[in-house]
Amino acid sequence: MQTIGVIGGGQLARMMISAAHELGVEIKVYGEAEGSSAALATTAIGAPGDIDAVLEFAKTVDIITFDHEQVPPSTLTAIVEAGTPVRPGISALQYAQNKLKMRQAMATFGLPQPAWAAVSSVAGLDAFLQAHGGKAVLKTPTGGYDGHGVRFVTDAEAAADWFAPDVIGEFDGQLLVEEQVTFAFELSQMLARNPSGDIALWPVVETIQRHGVCNEAIAPAPGLTPQQIDDAAAIGTAIAESIEVTGVLAVEMFLTEDGRILINELAMRPHNSGHWSMDGAVTGQFEQHIRAVLDLPLGDPSLRAACAVMINVLGGPHDGELDERVVAMMAQYPAIKFHWYGKTYRPGRKVGHVNAYGANVQEVLAEATAAARLLDSEVEA
Amino acid sequence: MQTIGVIGGGQLARMMISAAHELGVEIKVYGEAEGSSAALATTAIGAPGDIDAVLEFAKTVDIITFDHEQVPPSTLTAIVEAGTPVRPGISALQYAQNKLKMRQAMATFGLPQPAWAAVSSVAGLDAFLQAHGGKAVLKTPTGGYDGHGVRFVTDAEAAADWFAPDVIGEFDGQLLVEEQVTFAFELSQMLARNPSGDIALWPVVETIQRHGVCNEAIAPAPGLTPQQIDDAAAIGTAIAESIEVTGVLAVEMFLTEDGRILINELAMRPHNSGHWSMDGAVTGQFEQHIRAVLDLPLGDPSLRAACAVMINVLGGPHDGELDERVVAMMAQYPAIKFHWYGKTYRPGRKVGHVNAYGANVQEVLAEATAAARLLDSEVEA
Repeated sequence: MQTIGVIGGGQLARMMISAAHELGVEIKVYGEAEGSSAALATTAIGAPGDIDAVLEFAKTVDIITFDHEQVPPSTLTAIVEAGTPVRPGISALQYAQNKLKMRQAMATFGLPQPAWAAVSSVAGLDAFLQAHGGKAVLKTPTGGYDGHGVRFVTDAEAAADWFAPDVIGEFDGQLLVEEQVTFAFELSQMLARNPSGDIALWPVVETIQRHGVCNEAIAPAPGLTPQQIDDAAAIGTAIAESIEVTGVLAVEMFLTEDGRILINELAMRPHNSGHWSMDGAVTGQFEQHIRAVLDLPLGDPSLRAACAVMINVLGGPHDGELDERVVAMMAQYPAIKFHWYGKTYRPGRKVGHVNAYGANVQEVLAEATAAARLLDSEVEA
Repeated sequence: MQTIGVIGGGQLARMMISAAHELGVEIKVYGEAEGSSAALATTAIGAPGDIDAVLEFAKTVDIITFDHEQVPPSTLTAIVEAGTPVRPGISALQYAQNKLKMRQAMATFGLPQPAWAAVSSVAGLDAFLQAHGGKAVLKTPTGGYDGHGVRFVTDAEAAADWFAPDVIGEFDGQLLVEEQVTFAFELSQMLARNPSGDIALWPVVETIQRHGVCNEAIAPAPGLTPQQIDDAAAIGTAIAESIEVTGVLAVEMFLTEDGRILINELAMRPHNSGHWSMDGAVTGQFEQHIRAVLDLPLGDPSLRAACAVMINVLGGPHDGELDERVVAMMAQYPAIKFHWYGKTYRPGRKVGHVNAYGANVQEVLAEATAAARLLDSEVEA
């Protein structure tokens, strides 16, 4: 079996370790610091932009994949030129790294998305606002994650700071502006594709954000029509095939109040909205990512129960008592699965998640929510 | 959370690593050699009998548990005296280490078991043979596993070599002899108990041996009467409570042709007959062992499907092509879960196992068997 190298030592790398270990696949992590979530398999420490250090690490593995998309293109190019494949490949990964390129590509493929424009000035933003009801979402093309690099605007002048030359200059002089979609709820279609071209789709899930961060996922998304389910799968498949994704792909989408599905963002790695699959699907996303990047046959992505739910656990002010709260949660909810990230706690930081599954979505959601609230800082919110 | 230390670097330690990692529990392994199955978390190397090395290791953890029972009592005592608890405790573990002590204890507790005797001479063995139909099973009290230290006898003189002073002297001058039970099939009742006294039982499973080694497990054991299921659970619970087991306990049992359940052997750690639980139960045996030895609340041991099956994969003469056979198996059986032990292959050695689950035991067993046979040396047998 080939050895996988993961750039980035966050919780996604951590959970790849367990999955690779069971498959008998050797895995090594290039982490940012000692004591990261993925410390168990960390063999090198450095910044993603430290090309020499990354190349040294790449020599010790057969395939490189990623914990996050914040790896500079120059680093990616250097790895490939030195002879180690990166999966997903550079040409695919750019669409997860750069939201403006993503919008351009989705438009080229004719896939449904919100109205958008590349804007380079306050005047350009103002024109977009006037054409779209006076409100919009302004995004930096790169560098954004979990709500960073995103702002809601109703007044172009109020966003003038992002058009200052030293700011917009970091983004080749262009920002992305999108219509502010009025959505019924948010969806995530996840799938995996291997280099041989096999694709396996998990059921589309509903995601619920809290403070701009994915907090809950419900699989399958309740209340969709068969046509909407098919549409979500078709969009995911079209993206994966068009840009030849390898590994796990998450397509975050809006379901509008009038029933249309619009593409929001892409991630090319295991994703928070797929954590439910670790316990709720025959093949979880971390195992599937390992299979996909090694070009192994993909596992069965079917649900193992009628429904499955994932809820994030956030660190909070009561962390001194966290161990006690874990014990209380375990005692009260023996069927809840929890996955802990080995992180130090601070308010709002994701430190783990709980998974539950069963026959009735309301009951499963209620149990998972109660278990998560026993663990995180929201307990007294 | 406390840190767990595991003595022994085999596949059981390996699978504890993945389970502990997801629970956020730090785990360290004291392995016999570099490159063991549990290399990912191995922090010290040495023999189980190297007391100084074991004590150095024990200082780095909060609780000691085991990959196998072949740890000398002197080592166990030294660990406890130096201040680190061992779980299971010494007083319980002796019954998994010494089959003669186990028989004596089961008799004291009034639990059902085959006829047995402690014998110290050929004449003693001959008397037992004459009283039990001319056939018996002779066992060394300690040091036996997977069929080692066990022989079937019909002629006492033929076993005279084991009564030679230099052989029997290693066992305090006594061997164990048991009636050779004519059984319908073999069962394993597994459970976990934590130091607080909580017990969680998995459904009793049928095990099928091949060449003296557990090869298959079917959960729940098909064809048992409700009374037999209750009896198996009651026996397991009685043992766990009587000797205060902490951690996972496997009670291997015979179901005789006339429907009685008799205790065969005990193991006090995760056991081959419980591997099905990794994918077939809400809480798998490795996670449950971690919970139990840390005195955390136990997880739900319920089946996640109507039935679950485990089949071992044995290394064989075709190992040069093993990667190709793994790929073929994955392609043909996307729903099969497999767990690989990171071992070098040799004929008959357990190198992994496959798990399957579903609604119909015959179908699940057929699929798991076909998948396992694609992987192991029996493919051309």
